[in-house]
Amino acid sequence: MIYSIATVCLSGTLRQKIEAISKAGFRGIEIFENDLITHNGSVHEIRSMLDDHGLEVVTYQPFRDFEGLPAPYRQKAFDRAERKFDLMEELGTDLLMVCSSVSPQALGGIQRAADDFHELGERAAKRNMRVAYEALGWGKYVYDYRDSWEIVRRANHKNVGLCLDTFHIFSRQTELDTMLNIPGDRIFLVQVADAPSLSMDHLSWSRHYRCFPGQGDLPIGQFVSNLHATGYDGPFSLEIFNDQFRAGSTEKTARDGYRSLVYANRAAEKSADTEALEIPSVNPPSEVQFIEFAVSDNEKLALTKLLSQLGFCHAATHKRKGVELWKQGNIHLVMNMEPDSFAQNFHQQHGVSVCAVGLTCTNVGDMVERAKKLEFSPVYGNPENDTHGIPAIYGPGQSLLYMVDDADQPPHWEREFKWHEDATQHAFLNKVDHVATTMSYEEMLHSVLLYRAMFSMKTMPTVSVSDPGGLVKSQALQTPDKGVSFTLNSTQASRTVSSRILDQYAGTGVNHIALSTKDIFATAEFMVKQQTETMPVTANYYDDLAARFTLSDEVIEKLKRYNILYDEDENGSFYQLYTSMFAGRFCFEIVQRNGYQGFGAANSQMRLTMQARELMS
Amino acid sequence: MIYSIATVCLSGTLRQKIEAISKAGFRGIEIFENDLITHNGSVHEIRSMLDDHGLEVVTYQPFRDFEGLPAPYRQKAFDRAERKFDLMEELGTDLLMVCSSVSPQALGGIQRAADDFHELGERAAKRNMRVAYEALGWGKYVYDYRDSWEIVRRANHKNVGLCLDTFHIFSRQTELDTMLNIPGDRIFLVQVADAPSLSMDHLSWSRHYRCFPGQGDLPIGQFVSNLHATGYDGPFSLEIFNDQFRAGSTEKTARDGYRSLVYANRAAEKSADTEALEIPSVNPPSEVQFIEFAVSDNEKLALTKLLSQLGFCHAATHKRKGVELWKQGNIHLVMNMEPDSFAQNFHQQHGVSVCAVGLTCTNVGDMVERAKKLEFSPVYGNPENDTHGIPAIYGPGQSLLYMVDDADQPPHWEREFKWHEDATQHAFLNKVDHVATTMSYEEMLHSVLLYRAMFSMKTMPTVSVSDPGGLVKSQALQTPDKGVSFTLNSTQASRTVSSRILDQYAGTGVNHIALSTKDIFATAEFMVKQQTETMPVTANYYDDLAARFTLSDEVIEKLKRYNILYDEDENGSFYQLYTSMFAGRFCFEIVQRNGYQGFGAANSQMRLTMQARELMS
Repeated sequence: MIYSIATVCLSGTLRQKIEAISKAGFRGIEIFENDLITHNGSVHEIRSMLDDHGLEVVTYQPFRDFEGLPAPYRQKAFDRAERKFDLMEELGTDLLMVCSSVSPQALGGIQRAADDFHELGERAAKRNMRVAYEALGWGKYVYDYRDSWEIVRRANHKNVGLCLDTFHIFSRQTELDTMLNIPGDRIFLVQVADAPSLSMDHLSWSRHYRCFPGQGDLPIGQFVSNLHATGYDGPFSLEIFNDQFRAGSTEKTARDGYRSLVYANRAAEKSADTEALEIPSVNPPSEVQFIEFAVSDNEKLALTKLLSQLGFCHAATHKRKGVELWKQGNIHLVMNMEPDSFAQNFHQQHGVSVCAVGLTCTNVGDMVERAKKLEFSPVYGNPENDTHGIPAIYGPGQSLLYMVDDADQPPHWEREFKWHEDATQHAFLNKVDHVATTMSYEEMLHSVLLYRAMFSMKTMPTVSVSDPGGLVKSQALQTPDKGVSFTLNSTQASRTVSSRILDQYAGTGVNHIALSTKDIFATAEFMVKQQTETMPVTANYYDDLAARFTLSDEVIEKLKRYNILYDEDENGSFYQLYTSMFAGRFCFEIVQRNGYQGFGAANSQMRLTMQARELMS
Repeated sequence: MIYSIATVCLSGTLRQKIEAISKAGFRGIEIFENDLITHNGSVHEIRSMLDDHGLEVVTYQPFRDFEGLPAPYRQKAFDRAERKFDLMEELGTDLLMVCSSVSPQALGGIQRAADDFHELGERAAKRNMRVAYEALGWGKYVYDYRDSWEIVRRANHKNVGLCLDTFHIFSRQTELDTMLNIPGDRIFLVQVADAPSLSMDHLSWSRHYRCFPGQGDLPIGQFVSNLHATGYDGPFSLEIFNDQFRAGSTEKTARDGYRSLVYANRAAEKSADTEALEIPSVNPPSEVQFIEFAVSDNEKLALTKLLSQLGFCHAATHKRKGVELWKQGNIHLVMNMEPDSFAQNFHQQHGVSVCAVGLTCTNVGDMVERAKKLEFSPVYGNPENDTHGIPAIYGPGQSLLYMVDDADQPPHWEREFKWHEDATQHAFLNKVDHVATTMSYEEMLHSVLLYRAMFSMKTMPTVSVSDPGGLVKSQALQTPDKGVSFTLNSTQASRTVSSRILDQYAGTGVNHIALSTKDIFATAEFMVKQQTETMPVTANYYDDLAARFTLSDEVIEKLKRYNILYDEDENGSFYQLYTSMFAGRFCFEIVQRNGYQGFGAANSQMRLTMQARELMS
């Protein structure tokens, strides 16, 4: 199949779009009419630009309100088509995409529409053109691909074929089995779009919320599998209307688009004629093995003081570099102060921050291969300064996601670090529960695709959380066995805690790191003894807790004493305790899960209000 | 009725909300549970704060998932209520708002619910408390106010009453006649919210898109009129969940909220016991009489050069001040360079810009009275520098909207200006067609309320326009006879033309002023002779025009020669011609309407793309 994208998906001028589309690796492009109309150059010049960038125009679109018209509108529609054929000749494409009519003048009737298309096919044939008919989800009469297929079948003309669009099919919840009865060569165009599950009118949903395959909730995989069964081998093209994409970076969006097609088409068989490439299947990572902080010497002192107060010890020191390992249970926190390292370059841009997360993986060779196919170019660090040789890809905010092979022997900790056998080992905290990162809306879609495509993570339903300065959208992702969890937060409101975090980090940044304990009260008691500053919780919160849950006064009193938040779901209970913000940027969360599956969304408003208070004071 | 607002409507901490609510003039407040829970002070302290600000807590809310529960949940729900009664006692309110259950455990049945409420009434009575029952639009069994009323009626307890919420009633499209059969004293609480017409699930619509009465599309007037008929005299309270409000200015939002209640309740009869005040009815303004520019001496030279190129002449000069009047047909453009004037203070903040618009009105005394009642405090200018004494209110971006009395004799132009009888009068342009202003989303809602409440303007459906840097939302408003029209544009994307305009003006600013002509081609020909720079239109646009409309090649050729845009609707044709941007800020649009009713939305993408190109070059 030819990987393609419609110009309407991207922001910018037509020239910027063409450059970004070519650079991202696409071979095909759909020219959206408005982009051509507003271009201040001739069609001939557009064609040269496309040729220079090695792009084939897979279709010119949309041609609207064609079929079913009575006189005199019918004749006018054919005249209009002839004009578009003129333009297409100049542009160098032979396929016009016709979407089902929404015209108030249009009349219904399958046969009437088929007759119109037969005549259009005759005219198209004379010009060596073809037309592809698409059922819009909100078409006046035709809004179901089974009906558009019946019209194409009856039009019975070799120059008239079908256009299938996943959004329109799924938004009307049409079954996919009929697809299997359509010969692949009668399908002229396939448009793929994903979308979040939203309950709203089809038109608004389509025009503002579409997203790339792998970023939404539609079962694209099922569609692609049926599509392969038809034998279709034409354009596989993105047609996404998305408010964030229209406002975002042209190049980044185009790159995400390309990888989303590779991901959507991952089951495709290898074929010399197409770009449909098999990508290796991999296991999801099993755990967060380490979290690396970019710190100055002074920040290291302050941060490790806090870590000591949480029971961490300085377990090892890098043999050659300015890098320390702080450890507790199975949690490895790396302090990187090595000059000229990735960490220190990151520090220059973002200040004290999490610059990398290491994930424990199996068969890292396959993961690297998969990353390459998905255009998440793996990096191995500077061999002068980063000796471990662990491959990584760029994650949120250009931090690194290391893929640490669990079969690597001896493990890098042994190879590279000198261990301090005399370090006091506490055992309050045992593993990383989840990492919460704040990012822009645009980067949220990018990250969802990355975590799904690379690490097989599943999304949980998004939640809106109220911050004193506005709403924050929160999206949790987890590996199937819940070994690795990330929560992503973003906001369009400029005065929220999330926005302040974004400003502070000059971009995306980690907001909190949740570490799990088996005994929250023992941990809290230790923290009190260590004089650890925790996020204060209001007294009113505990009064409300008493009303909401069946907790003894004694338990409530204990929760209150230690500033511990509490929640329950149908699976069990959940305890949360936050430290104060470190340098106004991030904090640690201590959690205890007794079966509970969520991330404490019910307590998020409390946290954000307290953090806002802390940031303002 | 007691004007009230729920804390959830506003951004900020509880303290900030209480201060803003009191300052805006409200007497009542609904304490939303989360605001109390996250407040870091005792309930007692909240009560003192409320007392200090003269605010009465009309209700504590929401109490969820109460009715219809089987054992053991039922008992737990009553325990929960008792805890809330404790809290309410301390807070100093006697009304608990209970919204209909969405609990999976809840069982249906009107009588079961009524029995639960009777028992709750008994408990409430013992504590001198009352409960108000509200049908949530997405309640599990009860989502219709007629059902919640039946439950209240059968509960048959003096301490159990009804809560009516306009959003829930209108979102389910429930009829309003049943309201007239409910005795006013059985209604304990009325919540008012407006919303735009959106087709989406009730919950998302309610949680993100509600707005103040007069800002949306719901028929609030009909509800209020029925409400008065019931004899209800309790709290009239705003409960708005709106993403922009949650992120916006606490004080400004509270002020808009208060005036929206005055506006919604405008038909109310005067009563000594309530704040329900009659506001004088007024006629809409008939025309834009003048537009005033804040300019430096140099900018005046450049701007009036452009005006000359459009056929304007320097018609008059202010007798005492540095103010010139430029005129053509019925269009008056005022250049204000007078030191220390409102215009020059505005200039210091915003640079060259439109600082005021004068509207021709009848009975300005009544309009001033209406403005006062609606808390749009009228201003009269500095008597030292602004001698005309014309009252004004603040419009978008703190510019002034003057209300010029058409009965004022002699008119201010005669009183204050020396006319140049020898000035050459052209007659290409005859009146102001509309003024387009760019503003933030938040200010858009504020402005819609202002234009509706003060000038009886009607909104047209909003449209989304594609700019190369993102989507722009456009809202047109018109007086009923179309004498005055404004279009408001806003965007959340930071790289759009609209955003650049906002940045340049350091806030809201006029983007273009549309002036109408009877003969666009003669005007264009004159402009060519005057070497007026116009916004270039692409050749591809004209090819597309030929396909879309039945226009002769000759007409197309003429349109193309002069860079004139064209559109049609069912009423007629429309011609548009834009000048280049003045100082990268605003431009003039010359329009000819032959019956056409819109504002050329079909050509907006063309304009924005061209303007983006101009701003980037």
